[in-house]
Amino acid sequence: MAEELIGNCLVAQSGGPTAVINASVAGVISEALNQECIEEIYGGMNGVLGILKEDLIDLAEESQQNIRGLRYTPASALGTCRFKLKRDQEYERILEVFEAHNIRYFFYCGGNDSQDTADKISKLAQSKGYTLRVIGVPKTIDNDLVTTDHCPGYGSVVKYLCTVVKESALDHEAMGQHDLVSIIEVMGRNAGWIAAGTTLAKGKENPNDAPHLIYLPEVPFSKDKFIDDVQAVLKKNRFCMVVVGEGLVDKDGNYVANAAAGQDAFGHQQLGGVGDFLANFCEQNLAVKARSCKLGIGQRAAAHCSSQTDNDEAFMAGQAAVRAAIDGETDKMVILVRGEDETYSCETGLAPLSEIANGVKEIPSDWISEDGVSMTAKFIKYVQPLIQGEVQVPYENGVPAYVRLSKRRVRKVLDSFNFE
Amino acid sequence: MAEELIGNCLVAQSGGPTAVINASVAGVISEALNQECIEEIYGGMNGVLGILKEDLIDLAEESQQNIRGLRYTPASALGTCRFKLKRDQEYERILEVFEAHNIRYFFYCGGNDSQDTADKISKLAQSKGYTLRVIGVPKTIDNDLVTTDHCPGYGSVVKYLCTVVKESALDHEAMGQHDLVSIIEVMGRNAGWIAAGTTLAKGKENPNDAPHLIYLPEVPFSKDKFIDDVQAVLKKNRFCMVVVGEGLVDKDGNYVANAAAGQDAFGHQQLGGVGDFLANFCEQNLAVKARSCKLGIGQRAAAHCSSQTDNDEAFMAGQAAVRAAIDGETDKMVILVRGEDETYSCETGLAPLSEIANGVKEIPSDWISEDGVSMTAKFIKYVQPLIQGEVQVPYENGVPAYVRLSKRRVRKVLDSFNFE
Repeated sequence: MAEELIGNCLVAQSGGPTAVINASVAGVISEALNQECIEEIYGGMNGVLGILKEDLIDLAEESQQNIRGLRYTPASALGTCRFKLKRDQEYERILEVFEAHNIRYFFYCGGNDSQDTADKISKLAQSKGYTLRVIGVPKTIDNDLVTTDHCPGYGSVVKYLCTVVKESALDHEAMGQHDLVSIIEVMGRNAGWIAAGTTLAKGKENPNDAPHLIYLPEVPFSKDKFIDDVQAVLKKNRFCMVVVGEGLVDKDGNYVANAAAGQDAFGHQQLGGVGDFLANFCEQNLAVKARSCKLGIGQRAAAHCSSQTDNDEAFMAGQAAVRAAIDGETDKMVILVRGEDETYSCETGLAPLSEIANGVKEIPSDWISEDGVSMTAKFIKYVQPLIQGEVQVPYENGVPAYVRLSKRRVRKVLDSFNFE
Repeated sequence: MAEELIGNCLVAQSGGPTAVINASVAGVISEALNQECIEEIYGGMNGVLGILKEDLIDLAEESQQNIRGLRYTPASALGTCRFKLKRDQEYERILEVFEAHNIRYFFYCGGNDSQDTADKISKLAQSKGYTLRVIGVPKTIDNDLVTTDHCPGYGSVVKYLCTVVKESALDHEAMGQHDLVSIIEVMGRNAGWIAAGTTLAKGKENPNDAPHLIYLPEVPFSKDKFIDDVQAVLKKNRFCMVVVGEGLVDKDGNYVANAAAGQDAFGHQQLGGVGDFLANFCEQNLAVKARSCKLGIGQRAAAHCSSQTDNDEAFMAGQAAVRAAIDGETDKMVILVRGEDETYSCETGLAPLSEIANGVKEIPSDWISEDGVSMTAKFIKYVQPLIQGEVQVPYENGVPAYVRLSKRRVRKVLDSFNFE
């Protein structure tokens, strides 16, 4: 039995939102309410940025309705940030705020940058002799955290994108048109997990179902092969549906469409993303009509079409974080561990924060088919369970009824922080 | 009582698909099955194109499961086309096919171009003394057909887009970032009905909710005013969400974003890119970060987030078309008639095909606010009921389980048609 640590807890969110990161916060809150040694349950606004500013809210003041609503509300209800702590004073300030509010439990929902931050805060507390238990909660649509089987947030974005791919393909199928190339650009700057997942839009009975071609950042892009790939599909099918990860790179590792630099890897002026690039390239090099679409931020926030499995696991990860901390664990992240039976099951485990912070999980090479544009049965077996079940979002006046927290502020006791 | 007309019926779909056009076909089929004077129930593949080719399917051969599945399956299950009949021989061929298969009832689901085609077929039949009853079923996400209060397909695209706007806005709200302009480009070639409908994403209690600015093809676009509009929003709000209809034009009627000047078969300008255009324009003229997204074809096929009201009315319009024909009506389109009570109700009526064919319904000018970028209470009262209720789509393996018809072909009896 760990030594009982009495004090307050703080939960915060960091990095890009997902459809289920609020479900993790709901898991933290509901489990924290069960624990007598946790006195106050605070939320940090906008990740570490709010902690630096001593901008905390009292989550126990929220209505039960609001906390229940977090289960299906997308984005980050506590706000998030991409602010990276750099200076020693910043880390020290975090501890100062924790001390001022007797924060003894810190739960941080985020990806690897965030877990790195949590790790550093934890180590600083240890070196200063301030008793603090820090547990990370995994979050990222990118599914690129190491040690965990998969990440909360991933299953939901895949479920939504599969739905969009399937619906768009039915539309193309209905049109009499021949030789149409339809490109859907999806998120995933460094890893192709999201694009790869859209393979589940294919029906088992029809191998010609969309998506016909999937381009991943893991497979160096070649223009010649792309043209060959598209032509091969159009020999069998009236239209060719392509899913492409936004971070597609060529053999030298340069982005195929580098919007920021104003030009693509091949030196052409480029305004849109990789989807537009591929569409233009098709029209210039083949006698086809090409369209592209870019679903934008909405794809990671699509709670209306999110996975119940993903949602349940996100909630469970939040609960597990609190239980681990109560059990005396610290400087760890909750991970999802898949059962070994044929029937999918998932439970939580723990891994050191430092391990998460320094790794990026890549798609195993034998999960990508030799053709470079489709996924193998191993990958499908991996991803299929993650999109099962439909979250039933309540609607009001015809649109989803998401919650906004009332955000009752905790009284500040420190001087304001100088950001420089 | 109309004279009893015994014979076969043919239903076909035309123009761009919607989330509910198959529900209309399901309505036609289910009502036709009730009518003893209708012997065979045929479907024409890909609109008039399939009729010219004598490419008909026997809908009574489809499983009941399939017909039930049409209720929630998006796109056009019979296939569709944008082929426009031009030559007299083409119209005569249509009648020849009808005669060869004893088609006495023709139900055509489509927009105004399609209703024009139906009108001409009807008039040719009359002039040739071939007894044929022709009833149009309204269909278009664009909501631009005259005489009908609204069009099946419109409520569903609005419901989906409101959901995407609301979810994307929650994501922006969560990010700490200031001065972000987020642009969502939506469909709507000539009319802004779709873009206008996204105003329903706003919560009643919070006037600062997204979308903050709505740009409609009805309001001539001015670059200077656009910059002023965006700046005014960014004074009050950290981000500015803009919804823009793809067919935005300037004061001279030129498309603001004039993509490659390709035209479709009806001479319509092919569009795309106004979202990217506005995003680039913002970044070049204001110290902001701007993003755009383009939801593409998926928006009109988003049955997974479609309106139950819209779906019910689409089905009802299909049923009403059959009943009208049985009652001896011809050369008419089913219209939706809104009840006059405060509580929304809707029943069907009829209007002459020629009237539909020649009109385009515009947004009444007092439904657009004086600022040109928001909608008045009158518009909201009009559109609100159309997005109510959620269609429950069945899922299989985590993705929507849509149906494909088995498409048992009717034996051809004519020589093939020379298209020239």
